[in-house]
Amino acid sequence: MSSLLVVGSVAFDTIHNHLGSHDRVIGGSATYASLAASQLADVRLVGVVGQDFPREAVEMLRSRGIDTSGLEVAIGETFHWEGRYSDDLTSRETIQTDLNVFADFNPKIPASFQDSEFVMLGNIAPQLQLHVLDQVQRPKLVIADTMNLWIDTALDALKELLTRIDILVINEEEARQLTGYHHPLAVAEALRAMGPETVIVKRGEYGALLFLEEDIFCAPAYPLKAVADPTGAGDSFAGGFLGYLAENGHTDLRQAVICGSAAASFCVQDVGVGALAELTREHLKKRIRDFRELTCF
Amino acid sequence: MSSLLVVGSVAFDTIHNHLGSHDRVIGGSATYASLAASQLADVRLVGVVGQDFPREAVEMLRSRGIDTSGLEVAIGETFHWEGRYSDDLTSRETIQTDLNVFADFNPKIPASFQDSEFVMLGNIAPQLQLHVLDQVQRPKLVIADTMNLWIDTALDALKELLTRIDILVINEEEARQLTGYHHPLAVAEALRAMGPETVIVKRGEYGALLFLEEDIFCAPAYPLKAVADPTGAGDSFAGGFLGYLAENGHTDLRQAVICGSAAASFCVQDVGVGALAELTREHLKKRIRDFRELTCF
Repeated sequence: MSSLLVVGSVAFDTIHNHLGSHDRVIGGSATYASLAASQLADVRLVGVVGQDFPREAVEMLRSRGIDTSGLEVAIGETFHWEGRYSDDLTSRETIQTDLNVFADFNPKIPASFQDSEFVMLGNIAPQLQLHVLDQVQRPKLVIADTMNLWIDTALDALKELLTRIDILVINEEEARQLTGYHHPLAVAEALRAMGPETVIVKRGEYGALLFLEEDIFCAPAYPLKAVADPTGAGDSFAGGFLGYLAENGHTDLRQAVICGSAAASFCVQDVGVGALAELTREHLKKRIRDFRELTCF
Repeated sequence: MSSLLVVGSVAFDTIHNHLGSHDRVIGGSATYASLAASQLADVRLVGVVGQDFPREAVEMLRSRGIDTSGLEVAIGETFHWEGRYSDDLTSRETIQTDLNVFADFNPKIPASFQDSEFVMLGNIAPQLQLHVLDQVQRPKLVIADTMNLWIDTALDALKELLTRIDILVINEEEARQLTGYHHPLAVAEALRAMGPETVIVKRGEYGALLFLEEDIFCAPAYPLKAVADPTGAGDSFAGGFLGYLAENGHTDLRQAVICGSAAASFCVQDVGVGALAELTREHLKKRIRDFRELTCF
């Protein structure tokens, strides 16, 4: 299997939603992305946790084939986010963010990870994402996620990052904020002018749009009877997407988008990483077929 | 060609948007739906206008093959709506609604229209939609649109209507209001329990979902560089959808949804009915192929 380096947050999430309160479940962008990709590639995780991070959680990641030798254990407590979702899960408010050891995160890529063929830069400060790129050799493909916080506070670094990645994965709202445009074609044109050859705009319950030169692909979100928790859906999408490309040697971006959408659809069926921790390649393959049934005409 | 009866509003719209102010352009649900279907079926229009409605507009409809002998000219002025769109066109506020002759609209279906094979009940009071159904013989297929106003003010009549139609076409927000559910599968299950075998949920710039028994089809909206005016997009969708079924004898609902989406995509490219008045079957066919390119994987 191809090697896939994932750098991002590893965290505790306390989630209040229509199902109740869920205290300190395992989360973080690197966790979700690594789990989503773990059945498709040799995933190498780089992140930081505190001394309170449970050994069982690390064991769970390892049991999925994820190389956790880049998961630094720092003195202090693990990054903790607490938030409350609206009943329809379309919006959320942050109650508390305790950066803890994540405040001083300075990703060090182990020597054995520096030859990674595929690189996913999860949603961390663009300065840190750039620092990761300085440490890896010649990856076949680099994708990055970002968020409104960095658009507001680190725009110059973000713009530099955009010139150094192949694929940007970004929420629709944040893509609009970054470009000042509303309609998808205008948004994508402006983003691609900033650097990345390919742009993927995530639209939550409405799916995702892929823009590659003049080519546009529109993927739906998988319709579910009930959604438990959308936390990590975007990271699972990115993990499933890049995992597909790693498994298949970077060929069919459309199939990869569907694989990412499939991974995200499993993610949201459970609170935290519950469903992803059980995910098999067969589950993904079956859901990719279901996506075909959903969209063919 | 098969016969398609369209009943709804024929109106003047005054539209304020990012392109400027557009005074008293021709609009109305029946106008948009009739034009969208006009190249696919023998469209028979039933509506009411005032003495101020321009002869040229009626001529334009006739030139598209639309039978306007059911377009009543009443003493008074034509229904007039005035509204302002947000710059991103995702919301609008009504400035003024002058029902005028539409206040007393009581659709009379001419004897020569009563054998219509396909019936579209545009968004008018459900009591009037029921009154139309009482006047037609045995249509092959009846579809209806509705809106929040009737959910708020005429729920009983709307519920009766739902037991007498084959396909409900409804905006996602209004479908959520009517059922109390958020997620598409739950919404569709609740709507189908109210009567219609098939439900189509319109999601604006995110496309449409078709629910037919256990079958679900997800269609995107066509991505455009720029949208001029979304007024009438939903009615154009319904017209293109039912026009396709009329042309092809009610077979492939998925293709019909794409045809409706194609018609809507032309509608929004121009203010008012400008683009629809020029639409050919070739334009529709070409765009249906583009939809395939947009979604295949």
